[in-house]
Amino acid sequence: MKQIRVELINTGTEILLGSIVNTNAAWLGNRLFEAGFRVGRVTVVPDGYAINEAMRESARRADIVIVSGGLGPTSDDVTREALCDVCGVDMHRDEHVAEWLKSYFERRGIPIAECNFKQAMVPDGAAVLENSNGTAPGLVMPASGSLPMFILLPGPPAELKPMVEHSVMPLLEDLADEDIPHLRVFRLVGIGESDLQELVDGSLHQVEGLEVAYCARVGEVDVRLVGSEVALKQGEARLRILAGAYVLAPAGASLEKAVVCHLAQQDLKAATAESCTGGLIAKRITDVPGASGVFEFGWVTYADRAKTEMLGVPENVLKRYGAVSEPVVKAMAEGALERSGADVAVAVSGIAGPGGGTPEKPVGTVWLAWAFRGGETRTEMMLYPRDRSSFRKMVSQRALAGLLDARRKEPVTE
Amino acid sequence: MKQIRVELINTGTEILLGSIVNTNAAWLGNRLFEAGFRVGRVTVVPDGYAINEAMRESARRADIVIVSGGLGPTSDDVTREALCDVCGVDMHRDEHVAEWLKSYFERRGIPIAECNFKQAMVPDGAAVLENSNGTAPGLVMPASGSLPMFILLPGPPAELKPMVEHSVMPLLEDLADEDIPHLRVFRLVGIGESDLQELVDGSLHQVEGLEVAYCARVGEVDVRLVGSEVALKQGEARLRILAGAYVLAPAGASLEKAVVCHLAQQDLKAATAESCTGGLIAKRITDVPGASGVFEFGWVTYADRAKTEMLGVPENVLKRYGAVSEPVVKAMAEGALERSGADVAVAVSGIAGPGGGTPEKPVGTVWLAWAFRGGETRTEMMLYPRDRSSFRKMVSQRALAGLLDARRKEPVTE
Repeated sequence: MKQIRVELINTGTEILLGSIVNTNAAWLGNRLFEAGFRVGRVTVVPDGYAINEAMRESARRADIVIVSGGLGPTSDDVTREALCDVCGVDMHRDEHVAEWLKSYFERRGIPIAECNFKQAMVPDGAAVLENSNGTAPGLVMPASGSLPMFILLPGPPAELKPMVEHSVMPLLEDLADEDIPHLRVFRLVGIGESDLQELVDGSLHQVEGLEVAYCARVGEVDVRLVGSEVALKQGEARLRILAGAYVLAPAGASLEKAVVCHLAQQDLKAATAESCTGGLIAKRITDVPGASGVFEFGWVTYADRAKTEMLGVPENVLKRYGAVSEPVVKAMAEGALERSGADVAVAVSGIAGPGGGTPEKPVGTVWLAWAFRGGETRTEMMLYPRDRSSFRKMVSQRALAGLLDARRKEPVTE
Repeated sequence: MKQIRVELINTGTEILLGSIVNTNAAWLGNRLFEAGFRVGRVTVVPDGYAINEAMRESARRADIVIVSGGLGPTSDDVTREALCDVCGVDMHRDEHVAEWLKSYFERRGIPIAECNFKQAMVPDGAAVLENSNGTAPGLVMPASGSLPMFILLPGPPAELKPMVEHSVMPLLEDLADEDIPHLRVFRLVGIGESDLQELVDGSLHQVEGLEVAYCARVGEVDVRLVGSEVALKQGEARLRILAGAYVLAPAGASLEKAVVCHLAQQDLKAATAESCTGGLIAKRITDVPGASGVFEFGWVTYADRAKTEMLGVPENVLKRYGAVSEPVVKAMAEGALERSGADVAVAVSGIAGPGGGTPEKPVGTVWLAWAFRGGETRTEMMLYPRDRSSFRKMVSQRALAGLLDARRKEPVTE
């Protein structure tokens, strides 16, 4: 079966101005790949006649052209008109859609404006896709002659995503390539991108038919393997042999999810005591559904007084060593462990900047401590002089990764 | 002066697969707009010959074509070759770049691989842009004949951004439109997008030469005004008259920044007591540099026991009303106020889901409370049945917005 060519057109001046990041393209690229399609090109054009031009160009190359945005009720919204122009058809008012619009506004007790009925206009020959989160219906124009299939979707992600899941995917399933290449993403923590490549890249590239890609973020690297099931298995085995210690489990999980799974599996509870991260570590743990099974107590001790009053860090220790010091994070972690009754507690104190640095402790300095019930407290110093947000992210990475070392002393009894 | 047409080409299979979000396009669109240019089109193509095709197409429409990605040392990296193909020139090895590469690796104590010298190859007639954060130099090919100016940049944002700031912007400044349109973004909280449009859109569109755009996110709407200085002033005045109560100050600030500025101005300190948001509110406050002046104490009381032990919520109240209830958030806020010595404390307790809902308290239910020193505690119930992450974001929006109501009782003495 020949490869189906899909192209994506995102419309909207606000995307080109950089006022919004084009997350629709990434989400669709990923979702379509899972379903066996590859997006061959993404084009972003402003509202206006550029949409017609882009649709005509994509039509020459692709079998399916997906267009997002420009289906609203205002005069800026001209994607419907562009479809008519490109396909050489007229529009008609669809009474079914008009009735649905009326009831949509009625249910909300809002009078319907005349301009809203623009959204009931449907190009001849197109089918309507229901919008469960807004007033702009989607449209599908079947392929005909030399023209590809056109799928028009609303721009807001909250409207686009459910429409794709409920209406577009069932439509596309029959068209998908039979031999879908498989994709597997592994997230690694504790090793940099270049060290990782040196370690595994040569070996992975020996696997026939395996595509390998790396994507580095603050404090983590993703390895993406694409290929047949056999190639994937070989690739995964090689990755695990060479760099298994850094691969998070379950495969592809975020670090916070790996931490929650690990703690749950070991039947351990964790507590957090944060200064420079200001709640970010607790926030990331509780991003994971079910975190309440492993996390109960978190402290944000942003001021010295809070470290003393909330966690019992002695005032003289703070005075003598300063808030960003080994004795202070150690006392924070041990105080949090004791007061929470948890099995492991992590504490961080650092200088996120832009202000607050000194020659001895420049911006980017951080002390971390992990206190374990019935074990010795570990501490670590790190220097990561970046912008405030990257620094905080990196500190939370290190703090969370350290929680993966927590082990139950006695075997878990079922 | 005629409008300079700029197009952007982002290369990389990983962008089309959705493995990375194309933040370079948004950043460049915004940065170029500030400098007086508008990006007319963004095209994303996979690694390979599609780059040559896209460059040829953009060359027909644009005066400046910026290409990102594909300047690395591996066989995937073919943007240099594409430039030679499109411009009909050869490449030569630039000894200055080769020496710089050697010293780059030497400084890091890493032996240089032969493939790295690929990055010393420079198309004839092109100038080299220094990379302060990586090994891929940028390239500029001046416009000639019917061909536009081509600017080739490395893909990683950490390399692309400084190169644009230090090397590309000085190059473009002389070409910019003299009559740069001004841009002003206002962020509004406490009103939905459609209500806002109804309130202000008609009036704003009466201002001649004013472009108006809205961008809604969870719990906030941005209004973007573009136009001459006069049009902007008129637009801003109309926006403030009609919807001033919702506009955050300083203009365009994030909600957390507005909160920190407001508290600092009123000389107030805030504390947080979080259950369902798990640290997100404290994290957002401390995202703002200088937050330590207004925030010292935060509690993450994820378990019932934590609410009792950390904040003194009576056990019988928890038992009688449940953790997601008005009496419990009230006790949390008042406990946090008392224990922190702050002037205002906010508390939240809700059901983020996906589990934990009941018929009486479905997923998406949340109680919020704000306790004020020397004032009455306010409470509020909200139902926002969305995914876990949107719910937590929305709760933090509401919690932070409530802090904007805090006022110092006695006038601030200087």
